[in-house]
Amino acid sequence: PRKFSIVCIPGDGIGVDITEAAVQVLGTLSDTFGTFTFQFTTLDWSSKNYRQRGYYAPEGGIEGLKKYDAIYFGAVGWPDVPDHISLWQMILPIRTTLNQYANVRPTRILPGTVSPLSACAADPSALDWVIVRENSEGEYSGHGGTTPSSAHAAHTVATEVSIFTRVGIARIVRFAFETALRRPRRTLTMVTKSNAQRHGMVLWDTVFYEVAREYDGRVAYDKMLVDAMTVRMVTRPQSLDTIVATNLHADILSDLAAALSGSIGIAPSSNLDPSRTYPSMFEPIHGSAPDIAGQGIANPIGAFWSAAEMVRWLAGARDGEGLGVESMVDAADCLMQAIANVTEQGVKTRDLGGKSGTKEVTDAVCAEIGKVYKVDK
Amino acid sequence: PRKFSIVCIPGDGIGVDITEAAVQVLGTLSDTFGTFTFQFTTLDWSSKNYRQRGYYAPEGGIEGLKKYDAIYFGAVGWPDVPDHISLWQMILPIRTTLNQYANVRPTRILPGTVSPLSACAADPSALDWVIVRENSEGEYSGHGGTTPSSAHAAHTVATEVSIFTRVGIARIVRFAFETALRRPRRTLTMVTKSNAQRHGMVLWDTVFYEVAREYDGRVAYDKMLVDAMTVRMVTRPQSLDTIVATNLHADILSDLAAALSGSIGIAPSSNLDPSRTYPSMFEPIHGSAPDIAGQGIANPIGAFWSAAEMVRWLAGARDGEGLGVESMVDAADCLMQAIANVTEQGVKTRDLGGKSGTKEVTDAVCAEIGKVYKVDK
Ligand SMILES: CC(C)[C@H](C(=O)O)[C@@H](O)C(=O)O
Ligand SMILES: CC(C)[C@H](C(=O)O)[C@@H](O)C(=O)O
Repeated sequence: PRKFSIVCIPGDGIGVDITEAAVQVLGTLSDTFGTFTFQFTTLDWSSKNYRQRGYYAPEGGIEGLKKYDAIYFGAVGWPDVPDHISLWQMILPIRTTLNQYANVRPTRILPGTVSPLSACAADPSALDWVIVRENSEGEYSGHGGTTPSSAHAAHTVATEVSIFTRVGIARIVRFAFETALRRPRRTLTMVTKSNAQRHGMVLWDTVFYEVAREYDGRVAYDKMLVDAMTVRMVTRPQSLDTIVATNLHADILSDLAAALSGSIGIAPSSNLDPSRTYPSMFEPIHGSAPDIAGQGIANPIGAFWSAAEMVRWLAGARDGEGLGVESMVDAADCLMQAIANVTEQGVKTRDLGGKSGTKEVTDAVCAEIGKVYKVDK
Repeated sequence: PRKFSIVCIPGDGIGVDITEAAVQVLGTLSDTFGTFTFQFTTLDWSSKNYRQRGYYAPEGGIEGLKKYDAIYFGAVGWPDVPDHISLWQMILPIRTTLNQYANVRPTRILPGTVSPLSACAADPSALDWVIVRENSEGEYSGHGGTTPSSAHAAHTVATEVSIFTRVGIARIVRFAFETALRRPRRTLTMVTKSNAQRHGMVLWDTVFYEVAREYDGRVAYDKMLVDAMTVRMVTRPQSLDTIVATNLHADILSDLAAALSGSIGIAPSSNLDPSRTYPSMFEPIHGSAPDIAGQGIANPIGAFWSAAEMVRWLAGARDGEGLGVESMVDAADCLMQAIANVTEQGVKTRDLGGKSGTKEVTDAVCAEIGKVYKVDK
């Protein structure tokens, strides 16, 4: 069997619960198929350790991730460490150091789950999107500052500098067009706020239309302002398919998308280095949820879906691509089918209106993997 | 009767249709009450004129607005002028030149209209929010640039610089607390993205908590990240009341709020100079809608609601405040009741699922003003 080394960073709170669940499911998947295996390494980079040792990743730690085939990430953030510290010490530098410039966030309504939108509750197929998020620059460049430095000065001024590069915009736009090409509807919606933000956002529009020319006649595309985009998402969900947006805009829109699909607890994300030079990272989009951490009630579905995306990526294929190691693509499909069967049966956590705990959902998915595998044979 | 001079800037597209409708309704209102009158001046600052003359406002035009009691604004934007030009030549400089630092955006579900959220369709009272938007700085500061200047340089870099000042944050936060104090639930939710944006957003959090101390025990408050806020808006609308956010975040959230309330066509906004040094500006939040402009089908409800807010402001009072010229507060209430009666009767434009045109809705609201006035007497 083909062997993959996976580094797990469970992080904080329910990140720990759901990573454990994902490892169990991935183990069942590889045992069932028998054509690939995972060797897991777990790193204890957490807020707890930060408080004890003063760092999340040790010196050279993020560079050290380069030797693995993929990274599986839980969640980071805990009330006693300011969020801008935990994030800038861990998740954000991993994304940029490993050149994971494409963050892919599919959203659809799983069987047995209910959208808060009446239209989608009536017709779940009305919501089927992939949000492609620029993951390396823009509003997350970290630049800016505060002056005067005393927090009590009456006239303090602080800036946030968003940095957009032609190279950075072109590569994510091209990635989004390629994603759209592989989807049945071949439609791409680009989002900016170039009416109010007249420098970086205008460059984004310009580069988008330049790249778009390469896809004329192959992908239908249009442009939305980010504010109007939220309106379209709730009023005409069926009009959208693939979406590309800046780091911040896509952060906001993908949380909204997840909520509209029924729960933020089911939503996956893939932080990809499309060049495959460095390992990509897979994480559910939800946070560490301190209020329910360690109680065994976290929804593991977002973690499983992320795991399925990891398996597909390791096979050299992404959604609908079908290249590479056939049986790993089958395995990813099998896991997605097992998830859908379990939600359809009503084995669901509370956020989805069910009564099951993390372990019950995990065991149910593992059992379904075996059944789906046999049926497909 | 007390006399107010109102300058109307209908702008582009349906801005023209709905400003005309608002002027008719305001005229009916003052005729009915008889204790105040409006003298309207209309300025033709539009994209059409920009194309002919090269400017929206003539030299000194925006300064000239200072002599009016209030500004009524339609919409700006037309496909043949890049949006970042039309907005930066007109709406954005008006907001900042006239110190209109507080943009107030109430949202609720009018009788006879339907929210796309099933929960709110079942219980319309679940959604009753006021979004207070910082309207003078932040992401709309306009700073930043692009280099090298050639649009075809492979390595172009562009920036958007958001500028936040302690003074600017403190005044909008205080305004938001005062707004929350006047609402029955006395609850304020503050929104930032201080986990990813570690300079200006962290200053925002800091200043918020400083100001909040003044309201301890009088207003309940909490903090949300902007991405998670969209989730809360669609999953727990009843948990929110007054909301304060940055220029960009509130722009996005208020469009989402309007859509969740049934249609962007009903949503009002007030651009206020709370010091009353300069005139404030009232405008529906929708845009110029080139696709339906001039067809007589635009929804005038957002324009009427904005007009009601203007009347209330001119009376020296805002929602729930009850100061100032009593009969003008009554007039604002009367207009809101007339609007509600008309939507309840089903006299609605297409965006609300009705069949009526702008004129029919306008005439119906004018007729209702008379009826509501008589009943209240
Ligand atoms: C944790 C945080 C930095 C992160 C982000 O804003 O990117 C999260 O919201 C996400 O969407 O992955
Ligand atoms: C027209 C545009 C500049 C404006 C904004 O972004 O402020 C609009 O979306 C609004 O909400 O008033």
